[in-house]
Amino acid sequence: MNELVQIERDAYGVKGVVSLTLNRPDAFNALSEAMLEALETALKEAGGSDARVVVLAGAGRAFCAGHDLKEMRAEPAREYYRELFARCSRMMLTIQRMPQPVIARVHGIATAAGCQLVAMCDLAVASSDARFAVSGVNLGLFCATPSVPLSRNVSRKAAFEMLVTGEFIDAHKAIERGLVNRVASPGELDDAVRKLAATIAAKPREAVAAGKGLFYRQLETGIEQAYAMASETMACNMMEDATLEGTQAFIEKRPPRWE
Amino acid sequence: MNELVQIERDAYGVKGVVSLTLNRPDAFNALSEAMLEALETALKEAGGSDARVVVLAGAGRAFCAGHDLKEMRAEPAREYYRELFARCSRMMLTIQRMPQPVIARVHGIATAAGCQLVAMCDLAVASSDARFAVSGVNLGLFCATPSVPLSRNVSRKAAFEMLVTGEFIDAHKAIERGLVNRVASPGELDDAVRKLAATIAAKPREAVAAGKGLFYRQLETGIEQAYAMASETMACNMMEDATLEGTQAFIEKRPPRWE
Amino acid sequence: MNELVQIERDAYGVKGVVSLTLNRPDAFNALSEAMLEALETALKEAGGSDARVVVLAGAGRAFCAGHDLKEMRAEPAREYYRELFARCSRMMLTIQRMPQPVIARVHGIATAAGCQLVAMCDLAVASSDARFAVSGVNLGLFCATPSVPLSRNVSRKAAFEMLVTGEFIDAHKAIERGLVNRVASPGELDDAVRKLAATIAAKPREAVAAGKGLFYRQLETGIEQAYAMASETMACNMMEDATLEGTQAFIEKRPPRWE
Repeated sequence: MNELVQIERDAYGVKGVVSLTLNRPDAFNALSEAMLEALETALKEAGGSDARVVVLAGAGRAFCAGHDLKEMRAEPAREYYRELFARCSRMMLTIQRMPQPVIARVHGIATAAGCQLVAMCDLAVASSDARFAVSGVNLGLFCATPSVPLSRNVSRKAAFEMLVTGEFIDAHKAIERGLVNRVASPGELDDAVRKLAATIAAKPREAVAAGKGLFYRQLETGIEQAYAMASETMACNMMEDATLEGTQAFIEKRPPRWE
Repeated sequence: MNELVQIERDAYGVKGVVSLTLNRPDAFNALSEAMLEALETALKEAGGSDARVVVLAGAGRAFCAGHDLKEMRAEPAREYYRELFARCSRMMLTIQRMPQPVIARVHGIATAAGCQLVAMCDLAVASSDARFAVSGVNLGLFCATPSVPLSRNVSRKAAFEMLVTGEFIDAHKAIERGLVNRVASPGELDDAVRKLAATIAAKPREAVAAGKGLFYRQLETGIEQAYAMASETMACNMMEDATLEGTQAFIEKRPPRWE
Repeated sequence: MNELVQIERDAYGVKGVVSLTLNRPDAFNALSEAMLEALETALKEAGGSDARVVVLAGAGRAFCAGHDLKEMRAEPAREYYRELFARCSRMMLTIQRMPQPVIARVHGIATAAGCQLVAMCDLAVASSDARFAVSGVNLGLFCATPSVPLSRNVSRKAAFEMLVTGEFIDAHKAIERGLVNRVASPGELDDAVRKLAATIAAKPREAVAAGKGLFYRQLETGIEQAYAMASETMACNMMEDATLEGTQAFIEKRPPRWE
């Protein structure tokens, strides 16, 4: 039970939901090299499994406080840092590349690469007492890699302000700015996560997987090419058995018979 | 009067405003193949006319409920779907390519490709009782083509949430998230549309047309090239008769003498 | 003291803060050719200096009312306008290219190229009575160059609405939409600017400079290349003396000894 990343299947009482919990509570779940590797492995396994939704959470008092500075500071060499940030970026991109939606379940603090995890997840549900910062600049380390997903979630000036001031924003500001989707009181956080996960788990897997992939691909192109990609995705999606059944059920005004 | 798209010139009592009304009220104005063709034709005609503003509305109880699923489901063949979504995408892009601003007048529901229409329009005015969803995922059909303009209007996580949950948002959330510009009570919706349309119809046509084209072109490039494009647009715009008169009038503190 | 751009070092009582004040109060600080040149020169000098933060403000009753229309209208020739807008765009891009964060201190009106200045600055603090418009369309001159940074700050439909209606938004709407970061009452505006500037001035210069450059570069690429750029920036940043000291201080739970 002292795994760095705890894996639970059918979590929150919902079939198809896999929960991954960062489990270094005494270190605010800092992303040591071992944690980065454990998390990437767990994400890839969940990605290749029959899971329909993945929830990413943190054990103890915080979601995640970012990199493990003690470990990082012990080996001051550019090549080491290059490899470290490249490894972390690979893990982060795994979240976007896997077929299942990934929901961040955020409580306590989410700072630096911890805030980056929230931004990289497809969706985020935050406790009303959660706080977010990209605070590396306070130590002289600008949160460059966190700025990549942050600036793709939050408006330009708001992201820039967080990056150069290192200041915290609360859950209310986080939802207002687009960094999280839903906010719940600490006592209702798990229920809010469960509801969102269950809603998604009830949709046909193929539609969600194809849709997620398309969503991020089309964002990186011009609108004409985006439409070409999306049209192709929809044409393929329509030919799935689940979709033919789902649309037929809609026409017949009955629930679809899936699985 | 049983045209699929009803066309009204000098609509809302404003010269230069063309109103296009989707007219299949019994089918919630579903976008059948015939409707897609009628709408594309109407948009292109309005685009080539001396109209200054186009308003897109729906007859009956809803704005538009998306594709005609019955028609779609009747011919389950990938090539047919490819052609269908390509045709729909062409129609959608017509809205962006035409020189006049297009305002969506939204009431009731705007779902799937109906929500996409709202997102594609340059501007949108919604009734306070309007509701928006990209709900295809509920039938196993991820709203891939709607995601193209939705994700260019709304922040990433909010768009993703709508796409994978299929859930409705109300008019209040729609304005907060950037999907619509203005919200009015049902009884004041037409007046709100009229005001916005009249404001734009009073501007010189050339400035608006050149500006609209530039607006979308520059969004798809880096900031340096965007500035180069925009500088050229402004230099050409300054040489228009209406602009020379407008700026001279401003200097002389008098109203411009246009037409 | 009648310089077009007044330069003050250690402004707001904070070491490292340079204030640049547009000083044509009788013309609402309109951007004449001379003003454009003076401002570009002042920005480049500040950029090359040991300043840590730059504040851009306007003298008199307004922040900036945009181009000097009288001067512009006097020479109606396309080549002249091409050169004028290219020069203005060069000045605007200087703000993004310089290593220091630039904060717009906005009071009164910020219209057309004045609103563009606000959008181009990395951060903006507005007086609660400030008002913003891209109002060129009212004279027949679509604010094409202002649309470049505006559409990179504000959601698509909101930006388009401002551009085709020419209407003002107030400070409340400006912060809601992402055009400014903070709003303060007129009597507390300088204090709000001072606080934000002082917070940033206290961070290591190299981290902020490298971070600002990376921030805008990565926004113009796909997410994978963005991560590659950002990883390299962080690896280099980690090797700075200030950063090694800052992270060591964090580990030792003491304040960093910088300078």
